[in-house]
Parts: sequence; C-alpha cells; structure tokens
Amino acid sequence: MTTFSAISAQLAGQAIEVPSWAYGNSGTRFKVFGSAGTPRTVEEKIADAATVNRFTGLAPLVSLHIPWDLVDDFGALRRYAEDLGIGLGTINSNTFQDDDYKLGALTHTDKRIRQKAIDHHLACIDVMDQTGSRDLKIWLAEGTNYPGQGDMRGRQDRLAESLATIYDRIGDDQRLVLEYKFFEPAFYHTDVPDWGTSYVQVAALGEKAFVCLDTGHHAPGTNIEFIVAQLLRLGKLGSFDFNSRFYADDDLIVGAADPFQLFRIMVEVVRGGGYGPDSDVAFMLDQCHNIEKKIPGQIRSVLNVQEMTARALMLDNAALQQAQDEGDVLGANEIFMDAFYTDVRADLAAWREEQGLPANPMRAYAESGYQEQIEAERVGGTQASWN
Amino acid sequence: MTTFSAISAQLAGQAIEVPSWAYGNSGTRFKVFGSAGTPRTVEEKIADAATVNRFTGLAPLVSLHIPWDLVDDFGALRRYAEDLGIGLGTINSNTFQDDDYKLGALTHTDKRIRQKAIDHHLACIDVMDQTGSRDLKIWLAEGTNYPGQGDMRGRQDRLAESLATIYDRIGDDQRLVLEYKFFEPAFYHTDVPDWGTSYVQVAALGEKAFVCLDTGHHAPGTNIEFIVAQLLRLGKLGSFDFNSRFYADDDLIVGAADPFQLFRIMVEVVRGGGYGPDSDVAFMLDQCHNIEKKIPGQIRSVLNVQEMTARALMLDNAALQQAQDEGDVLGANEIFMDAFYTDVRADLAAWREEQGLPANPMRAYAESGYQEQIEAERVGGTQASWN
Amino acid sequence: MTTFSAISAQLAGQAIEVPSWAYGNSGTRFKVFGSAGTPRTVEEKIADAATVNRFTGLAPLVSLHIPWDLVDDFGALRRYAEDLGIGLGTINSNTFQDDDYKLGALTHTDKRIRQKAIDHHLACIDVMDQTGSRDLKIWLAEGTNYPGQGDMRGRQDRLAESLATIYDRIGDDQRLVLEYKFFEPAFYHTDVPDWGTSYVQVAALGEKAFVCLDTGHHAPGTNIEFIVAQLLRLGKLGSFDFNSRFYADDDLIVGAADPFQLFRIMVEVVRGGGYGPDSDVAFMLDQCHNIEKKIPGQIRSVLNVQEMTARALMLDNAALQQAQDEGDVLGANEIFMDAFYTDVRADLAAWREEQGLPANPMRAYAESGYQEQIEAERVGGTQASWN
Amino acid sequence: MTTFSAISAQLAGQAIEVPSWAYGNSGTRFKVFGSAGTPRTVEEKIADAATVNRFTGLAPLVSLHIPWDLVDDFGALRRYAEDLGIGLGTINSNTFQDDDYKLGALTHTDKRIRQKAIDHHLACIDVMDQTGSRDLKIWLAEGTNYPGQGDMRGRQDRLAESLATIYDRIGDDQRLVLEYKFFEPAFYHTDVPDWGTSYVQVAALGEKAFVCLDTGHHAPGTNIEFIVAQLLRLGKLGSFDFNSRFYADDDLIVGAADPFQLFRIMVEVVRGGGYGPDSDVAFMLDQCHNIEKKIPGQIRSVLNVQEMTARALMLDNAALQQAQDEGDVLGANEIFMDAFYTDVRADLAAWREEQGLPANPMRAYAESGYQEQIEAERVGGTQASWN
Repeated sequence: MTTFSAISAQLAGQAIEVPSWAYGNSGTRFKVFGSAGTPRTVEEKIADAATVNRFTGLAPLVSLHIPWDLVDDFGALRRYAEDLGIGLGTINSNTFQDDDYKLGALTHTDKRIRQKAIDHHLACIDVMDQTGSRDLKIWLAEGTNYPGQGDMRGRQDRLAESLATIYDRIGDDQRLVLEYKFFEPAFYHTDVPDWGTSYVQVAALGEKAFVCLDTGHHAPGTNIEFIVAQLLRLGKLGSFDFNSRFYADDDLIVGAADPFQLFRIMVEVVRGGGYGPDSDVAFMLDQCHNIEKKIPGQIRSVLNVQEMTARALMLDNAALQQAQDEGDVLGANEIFMDAFYTDVRADLAAWREEQGLPANPMRAYAESGYQEQIEAERVGGTQASWN
Repeated sequence: MTTFSAISAQLAGQAIEVPSWAYGNSGTRFKVFGSAGTPRTVEEKIADAATVNRFTGLAPLVSLHIPWDLVDDFGALRRYAEDLGIGLGTINSNTFQDDDYKLGALTHTDKRIRQKAIDHHLACIDVMDQTGSRDLKIWLAEGTNYPGQGDMRGRQDRLAESLATIYDRIGDDQRLVLEYKFFEPAFYHTDVPDWGTSYVQVAALGEKAFVCLDTGHHAPGTNIEFIVAQLLRLGKLGSFDFNSRFYADDDLIVGAADPFQLFRIMVEVVRGGGYGPDSDVAFMLDQCHNIEKKIPGQIRSVLNVQEMTARALMLDNAALQQAQDEGDVLGANEIFMDAFYTDVRADLAAWREEQGLPANPMRAYAESGYQEQIEAERVGGTQASWN
Repeated sequence: MTTFSAISAQLAGQAIEVPSWAYGNSGTRFKVFGSAGTPRTVEEKIADAATVNRFTGLAPLVSLHIPWDLVDDFGALRRYAEDLGIGLGTINSNTFQDDDYKLGALTHTDKRIRQKAIDHHLACIDVMDQTGSRDLKIWLAEGTNYPGQGDMRGRQDRLAESLATIYDRIGDDQRLVLEYKFFEPAFYHTDVPDWGTSYVQVAALGEKAFVCLDTGHHAPGTNIEFIVAQLLRLGKLGSFDFNSRFYADDDLIVGAADPFQLFRIMVEVVRGGGYGPDSDVAFMLDQCHNIEKKIPGQIRSVLNVQEMTARALMLDNAALQQAQDEGDVLGANEIFMDAFYTDVRADLAAWREEQGLPANPMRAYAESGYQEQIEAERVGGTQASWN
Repeated sequence: MTTFSAISAQLAGQAIEVPSWAYGNSGTRFKVFGSAGTPRTVEEKIADAATVNRFTGLAPLVSLHIPWDLVDDFGALRRYAEDLGIGLGTINSNTFQDDDYKLGALTHTDKRIRQKAIDHHLACIDVMDQTGSRDLKIWLAEGTNYPGQGDMRGRQDRLAESLATIYDRIGDDQRLVLEYKFFEPAFYHTDVPDWGTSYVQVAALGEKAFVCLDTGHHAPGTNIEFIVAQLLRLGKLGSFDFNSRFYADDDLIVGAADPFQLFRIMVEVVRGGGYGPDSDVAFMLDQCHNIEKKIPGQIRSVLNVQEMTARALMLDNAALQQAQDEGDVLGANEIFMDAFYTDVRADLAAWREEQGLPANPMRAYAESGYQEQIEAERVGGTQASWN
C-alpha cells in the first residue's frame, strides 16, 4: 500500500463546500427541533461556516440558498465572508416553497408559472455575478403524487425548454448543475429521478451543464460509485452533495451510515480524475443536523471525507491492477480492503499540526468556547431554518 | 365467482375511521401548502369528517390526535360530533413534538422524561373515558439516527416498562394498540420497526393490547397481506392505518399506488375473520393530502376500501381452495384475479342508492356546494396542521 | 372513457414475441423442477410457441437464444416455424455460460476473451441473416462480486469498444438492442445496471442501436413507466422484456405481481407512440415458468398484455389532459383509474370470436388436448433447459 | 478505547462453523462454474474444512447438509473429522429439491407430502444422534409465486403442526433452529419470511427451539443488529448464518459488502451476551464462492468475523454509556466509530503467532501448497455441488 507520507501532499488542497442551511434548524415533517446558538442571519451562518474552516482547513467555501440567504448587498456579504477567511460558493435555487409551485415549476403546464421559475433562476445568476460563484445548482423538486396527475413526457419536454432558457444566461465561467433525486417531495414520479435523466438534460444544454450527484438520492441497492465512474467517464460529473442514509434521503453525516461506501466513492473519484487541482468537480455537504450539534456535525463530516480521501489515495493501484488483470478476485479485494482498513487518523492528526491546524478538530472546537459563546449571544430573533 | 348481490348485505356495516388531521394541512419537510377551506378548529375538522360520512355512509367515527385536538370539554365535543351523525374514535398520542422528546420518550434514558411521556398517555386515557373511545393508539416515533447514539436493547427494555405502566390504566373496554414503523423520523433505528417487535411488546402486556398495521410502514418488497394473516392468526391484529406508498411512508390515498395490494390485504382480512360484525379490527385512514383537496381525498379513500372489500367478498373461496388443493397454480391465480378484475363500481352505485346514499359520492360532494361554502366561510384564523 | 368498440381495431395488429426458452425448464439456483411434456428440441419449442399464437393470435414471433437454440440449418428452422404460422424473431446472445466468461466477456481484461465474445455476436448476426430476424439482443450478464475485483471504468471503456465492433456488422435492416439489469448474476456491480448506462452506450453506437427494457431489472421503487416515457422521447426504446416481480428479477408472469404497473407502462407506450403499426418497439416476454405449466403460462401472459393494452387505449386522453391542465389532481387520477378499473374481459372475448379466435384462450387450450398429447409423446430424451 | 491486549484473551475460544457445501461448486441460476480441486466426496469437503481450521484456529466444526452429505456410516465420518482436528456441527435439512416439494413440504396441503418432509427431519435427527450434533437447522424454502396460489394462513397452521411433530423428537441436548428468509426460491410469499414469524413458530414449540438469523435474508434497509438485540433479549437467538449482500441473498463473503454492518452486529452480540463461553449462540458461515477460490474464501470469511469481533470487544462501553446517558449524540457515535476504525490486523497477527497459528493465514495457505495439491489430486469424478 502507498504510505501516508507519499500521499499527504495531495491532501493539501482538499476543499469541501459547506451549505449555509446546515447551520440553521432542520428536521423531519413531524418536528423541527430548535437548538441554542442557531444563527438568525446569513452573516451568523457564514460565521459558523468559517469556524468549520478555521478548525479543519477543509471548508473554504460556503454555498448559499436563494431565497433563504437573500440579502440586499451580496458584494458586502462576500467581503464579510472573505474577512472570515472563506468565499461564497455554489448558489442553490428554490422552486419548491412558493404556492405557485405546488404542482410544478420549470415543468408546470402554466407558462406563467414556468416563467416565474425561470426568472427566479435568472435572479440567482445575478447573485452569482455578485458573489463570484461558479455554479448554479438546480435541485428539481418537481413531480407528481398520483398516476395520471401529470403528463410525465410533457413535463420532461417543458423542463428541457425551461432549462435551455436558463442556460442561455449562464456566463462563460459559470456552470449549471442539475441534481437528480429518486423521490420526495413528490412520491409517484419525480421529473429528474436518476442520473440518466439529469445526464440527457444537461447533455442537451451544452458543455457548461453538469450533473450533481447527491449520495442520498438513489434507490436502495444502487451502486453509487459506478455512477461516479460513469459520469466522470462522460465528463459530466459537476458536483457532489455529500451526506449519508440508511433508507431514504436521511441527510445524515456523510460517512456515518456506510463508511465503506464513502471510501469506494472516493476511490472512483481519484481513479477517474475527479480529485485534485486539475479537476472541476465540486464537493459539497448537504446534510440535516436534526438532533446533533450543527457545527461539530459539519466538522465531523468534512473530517470523514478527508479520512476516506486519504485512504483512497493510499490504495496501491499498481498492485490492484495486476491482481485484476490476473483474475485474482480475492487478491484484488484484499488490496482494496487494505487501504480501507488502514487507520489514518494518527497520521492525519500529525499532518494537520504541520499545517498549523488542530490535530483533533473536534476536540479543539469543543474546547474553543465558540459553542458556548454563540449559545450565550444568539438570544432572541428567529432562528434560521428552511425558509 | 360470487355475485355482487350475494355479498352486498355484508357491505352494510362497513366502517372506516377517518383521522381529524387529514382535514388540516400537511406536507413534506420541504413545504406545507395551505389550502382554502382548511379547518381552524377541532369542530371544523369534525364537521368535515361528518361530511365524508354523509356522502358515503362509510366513516362513522373520527379519530383524534392529542394534543392537536385537545379541547376543554370532550363531552361537549362528543355531543357535537354525535349531532353531526358521527362518533369520536381512536385516540392517538403524540410523544414526538415536545423538545424533551428529541432523543426519546417512552424509551428515554432519563426517568423524568419517560414519566412525562407515560403521563401523556394516561391523560389520553382520561380523554378516552370522556369520548367513549375504545382504542389508545401509540405510534412510537422513537429511535436513533447514528450507530452508538443509543443502547437499542436498553431502550427496548425501558419501552416494555413504560408500556406496562400505561397498560395498567387501560380500562376493561379499552385497548392499547402499538403501531410499528420501519423508519422516520428516526433513520438509523426505530424502537418498534416491525410487526415482530410490536407483537412481542403487546403480547407481554396482555389481552387488551394489540398491533396496529400501517400499510405504509414496511420495507420495500414486504408482503403485507402475509402479516395481516399472521396477526389475525395470533389474535393480535388491532387496527389498520390505511394509506398507500410508492417508496417510503408517502401517506397517499389508500389504493392509489397499488390497488391489487389493497385487494390482497382485504382478502386476508376476510379470510382471517377480520371483517364483519364479529371482528374487533379497526379500519382507519392515516393519510396526508398534501396537494389534493382533502375532503374528496378522504371520500375517494373510503370508496377505494369499499370497492376492494366488495371484490374480496366476491372471491370464490370454494373454487379457490379446490384449485389450491389440486396444486393448480394458474387456475387458483385466475380465480383470485377474477375477483380483482371484476368492475364493481356500477353495482356499488346502485347499492348506495338503495341505502339512501349518493350513487357517486365524489360527484355528489362536488355538486353539493360544501367545498365552496367552507372556502368562503373559513377565512382568517390559523389553519389546522400537525401542531 | 373511450369505448371498447372505438379502440378494438387498434388491437388487431398486436404482436408479442415469445421466447423459446420459456417452453423449456427453468428454476432457481436451488432447483429446476422438470415437467411432463417439456420440449427436447428447438422444433418442439417452436411448436409450443406456435400453439400459443394459435389460441391467442398474439404471438406471431418466437425469439431464439444462441447457443441454446443452435441448429445446423436455420433456413429450415425458419420454414418449419412458418409452416406453423409463426416467424423467428429476436436473436439473443449468451456470454455468461462459458468458463472463459467467469469474470467478464465483452468487458474482460483479456483481449482474447473479448474477441471470443465479439465473435459469438458476429455468429449471432449470421444467424439473423438466415432467420430474417431484425434484432440482436445483448443482455450483458457481466459485472463483479467484490469491490476492487474489477476496474469499473476500464470495463465500461472495453464494453464500448466491443459493442462498436459488433455494431459494425449490424445490417441496414437490423438493430442492436442492449439490455440493462440492476443485479444478478453479478452482485457488487453490473456493467450495464440501468437505462442510463444502456442509453449512453447505444447512443455512442448509432441509430441502429437501442435500449431493451426488462420490467424485472430495476431497483425497488423505480418508476418504470417514467423510463418508458423517457426512452420513447429520446427515440431509443428498442424493446421490452415483459415479466413481473415482487422483489428481484423474479421472472413471473407479466401482470401477475402488479397489474396496475403494467397498465401504467402501456399508457406511456401508447402516449409516446410506441404502439401500433408505425412503431418499431418490440414487445417480448422473458419469463420463467418454474412451477406453473408453461404453455398456459405463456397464454396467460400475452392475454394480460392484451387486456392492459385495451385499457390503456380506452383512456380518455382529452379529458385527462384537461384535468391535468386545470391542476385537478383527483379528477385526473380518477380518469386514469377509470380506464384501469374497467373490466374489458367480456368485450375482448367477443372481439376474439369475431377474429376467429377462441373467446377464452385459456379454456380452449385446456380443452384442446394439446397438453395431454405432448405429455404422452415427449417421453425420453433430454428436456430443454437453460443450456 | 479498550486496548487489544485487554481483550485478546476473549478471542481464544471463538468458533465459527463452516458449511460443507461451501467447498463444493455453487453459482447462480444462470451458471455454476466448476473449479479445479473441488471436492468429490464428503470426506474431501471435510478435509478442506479442517484446512481452514488449521490455518486460522477459528473453524472447529463443519456443518452438514442432508442429503448432500449423506453417508452410510456417520460414526466413521465423525472419527474421520476428529482425526483432522474438527467436529461435525449443525445438521441442515433439505426439503426443496425433491419433486414432491414443488409446491411445499412441511406446509403442503397433501398430508402424505408433509409426512415425507417430517420423516426427512426425523432422519436428520437420527444423523445428529450419530454425529453428536447439537442443532437441527431448518431453512424453510417454501412459499408461493402467485397471489391465490396457496392459503397463506392454512400453510402457517400446517407448518406449526409439522414443526411440533419434529420437535417432539428433538433430544434433551439438541435444538431445533428455524431460519427465516425474505424471498427466494418463492417470490410472492415465503412461509417464514421474517424474524417475527420464526419467533412465533419457535416460541410455540418450546425452550429447545430457536431462531436462525441469516445476514442475507432481509429486506433492503433492515437494521439487522436490532433484530440481533431483540432475539437475544427474548432468549431466542439460536444461530447465525453469516454472509454478505449488496441486494438480495447474494451469499458473498461475510464482511465484504458492508464491514461496518458486521461490526454493528458483533457489538450487539457482545452487548447481549451472545458471545463467549456462556453463550449458546452458534456462528456459522453460509456463503457461495461462485467465482473466488473456495478455501481462501472461507479463510477470509472467518478472519473477517474475527477482526470485527476484536473491534467489538474493544468498544469502550463505559464511555459509550456515559455519552448515551448525557444525550451526546456525536460523542457517542465517535466512541462507537473509534472501535470500528481501529486497525486490529497487526495485533491479531501477533496474537495468532502466540497461539501457534500463522500470522497471516491467507498468505500461509497460499504458500502451503495445499491448493496445488488438491488441484492435482482431485481429477475425475463428479465435483460436489448443491445436490
């Protein structure tokens, strides 16, 4: 196996975007539990995101959600973030919380509503122009609940038309990223349920359009790393939404439910050229911290990605390929598992100290007093949530 | 096949409880869409439930949810309902919306919180004493999100102890019904995830404790009618929560996603003695009308159950058993499908008219003006929802 | 709703290919049960297939599997079939039963084995030239069982190369159809696991390459009719393998597990232009009759498809679209369900008699004496199976 | 975390039964690939099993399958095994490969066939008396493929009666263990599909009847460790069939698909008193080595179990409970993951050497020449398989 020291240099540039909404309250349809210290403003969310970066060095960008993070002056917000050592990242649109969108947005039968949804995305691009964001991410939360409710094919055609209109406004240095999801909030059909649908839609748009892969958005049993490999092969993997799941879109901490799956995904990322300075693939978190503390939840998440990236980089690819070529099933698997089972935590701790970072970011955060401070200071006001 | 006229008498007593919360707003974690005419008070919910019964003759009871339906005087509420021609049915407890219950209620490690949750159930029994309700239904929305977060076995033991304390207060004519659910709102483990767990818990309590089967609470691929047959065989099927699903606990209109499954369930109900005047099995709806109109959604639901019940009753059991005994796989299946494929809708329409009911309850409701009336009258106030 | 008489003319040309292997023995990995009357030769399989067509008028083609159906003189075999009133249809290749293919065929790391698999397909095309078959169907039974065993991306690239070589030999009036499958016989990854992968592979080949959709080859919860709509929209739906399933690739009689799903699929087929004289979509069965009688199993299957096609044709599309455009969720669903719930069996029986076919093909077959005859005559020899 | 040295003594007695059939050929319904060196006789299977034990010290028992392993003199077979250093373990019955059992065995409607299946089990008990085996394991491979084919409730009742007859013959030091399985070889319903059904059946029999949990026999998303905890709590966990799966009953090497799941299972085993000298829980493998070499496949499997057992034993339960009691979600999870992420392989290698075992059993086997020897010697004859 490749040693840690041989790969540690490759860890230096790793960047995982954190979502602003992870710092606000979230929950299930049954209950959203509040928690002390939750941000009330976009600025407080950004401060928390910057804190994650300060303790880990892994989260240099925070992605925003429009309209949840709408402010009057995005230039000022950008400077605010930069003063805290981070940048503003991907802009996420929202066409699922307006009453007009009850039965669809970009796919709606009513041209007026489609235009409204298109205009929202154009406004998001305006935001991007101010924030310097590269990516417009569209999670298409559209679909139907009952057979017959909608014309699935007509909706697909209208989607293509709406996306084309939005894509026309995407700047030369910008990208449109289309996220797919198997189910929820629609239950009978979703308009972009799988990577295939997202792929054919973005392939029809052009070279600035890509697929977003959310690790929680697949049917049970789906081999996600295969999709990663395929999209990298096709040159269309735009970004990840990292989280983990046991059953549905649980939005748990990435790596918590199936760490081996996260390892396999990172192996395909590395193998397919999706990691490192020459890759444009964006790595983001998209999680809900319903019951656990939010900032340490985010710190744990980026550390999990880092730990699995280190293991993936340490995989002995030459030995693996030889075993594969020889048809040595057990030998190849053993080489693969060897990288996974290697405990990189002590090496990573030492490496972090070399970089001027805390050896143990979780403990350092706990001892920093930041949590106590925000719990004391953020009293009153309305805690941020998904609205 | 048995003819419709031979079984129509058995349709007369059919009763399907409707839940008060179906008339309020519901949605997904992403958005709850409001709608015109939504009740603001318990009384308005009951009026809507009575309307469903008036047009269908199928919904003589409305079940309540505590604390959502808490009123000062349940005796008055009962009289109010009876004046509208219906009764108050099952009482549903709620131990998932109080901040104390974030990490558990009846299973919590903290004795104080367990006692609080027990006390809530005792208060529900007090309500039952006033409403004349037979059943206390406990949906145990407890579990954990992360491996290691809780001691699954300790939680099971504490659950047993808490339930025993509640069961002690169940009156001679009352029942405790324990609902199981595969996942959500907890994602790693739920404390009562399957019928087996519910069964061992209620079997340990005594003969007034039963299992509640919600048709949306199973893993993909689960043969639900087998569970119905098994629970009837064990004498422990207490009640149904009817709804339908494509993937998770979608809470769609019963019969909408897989009408054949509903048929198979009703066949086992009839075969196992769960239908008719001698059976104590309670049939309830538990659905969310997120995007469709609520009252016609409920009417459609009880009609779907009625239509499938008629088909199940028409199954030629003698011919079926003969084919089964002869090992005639295709013949038995054809007899089974024959009942399912028979279109009973015209016969049911004629039969309803005989009973003094509208032949087509959906149309009759649409033409009745009730919807327009409530949309006009119910202006202002706070629309009922899951809180 | 459209009446039966208004659509019956469209039923006239319906054709469902039956697979030769359905008449041989099949089973699970645990046991293949033999049965009296099972064919020993390709000719006997074809005779059985012709019998299905004689009683139903629905199965004018039998598809062959190479090498299971290899004969010296395919011209003679074709004449034999034509004398029995049917033609030879799709040619199915087999690269999963030779020891060389244990770890892959078209994707193998060993160029010699890849070439062997390619040559097999070229031989299949030679067969097609003799049988007059239009379609070469490739079910890619390749993949890996253990993480690390193979290089998923390298395999995808080799697959593309192998397919291109085969495609070069496809004649002007021939088509290459690539089938996808979620899992089995490989368990960790399959090289063509989903429609997206099949689509990108065939799109790269050219306009004579299409996707084959087997209704049993999806993850739980997959909305298959959406995929039908999408592939028709993309012009890449080549053919169906019809069967049904409760959990995995169960290969049960089509329409047996979820008749409503079959209806929804046929609705999308009709809506998307996949049905009728102007469509090139091939409809085939791919089933295993493990425990039921094989010929009546096939008759039941084509009848199920016919019954659901009739219902799909009877859907009132004008009314449906109006309800969809008005956002009338329950109204649209009711129109949709109305077609499904309509019992077309009596109308179909009368229509069959008009066509000179038995009103009840199942009964007519049972009374024909054919089954008794083959059970008496086909004694000795080796019953056909999957080899 | 507890150190390895603090727990190593507990590893000494670990025993994992290996199944005789793992050394024979197995495959999918599509193909069984043969391999050089495969045993032709029961004795050769036992020799291979003894080899696994010789290299690992973990597999002191081999379980037999009747009739696959039927011999004239089981006393002689026992002595043969003991001379090789292992014993004969669990006896597995087979009621799925006789033509009579096509539609059922212990559940069949025909009393004669039920009696035949019962008699087979009595004969298995006779074998147990000779082999000294403690456990009779019944995998109930029964069910139906089509709705209506069988009377699910009648079958359940007949099953209870058949099992009671068998149980009557179980000796004082013997146990009956009933295995459940979600699906396959039956696809519509299986007669013992879940732990709940197995539990109610064995609970009705008596204190010598237990549940067998096969880790591959659950619906997707099932939390298996919860079932382990529940069955231990109920005192009814009899044995494990270890293997792993990505989708169905894939029967892959245990720990290969989801090592974290295996860890969680072992944690519940230890927590619930299922591990160690005072526990009667039997740990067995039930795997198919379709493409990988069989003996190293088995060695890898028992090593995987050992590695995860070590990690489970090292879990700091005191710290974990404290974090749980404090409601520290992230802290508890971190303690849990700490044990999982610890690389115990070097410690285990050293410990094995102390025990007089090879430090690296995989390499030691590869270098031992045993594989080359059996490949050279076992020429001719019929390779063992599932019949």
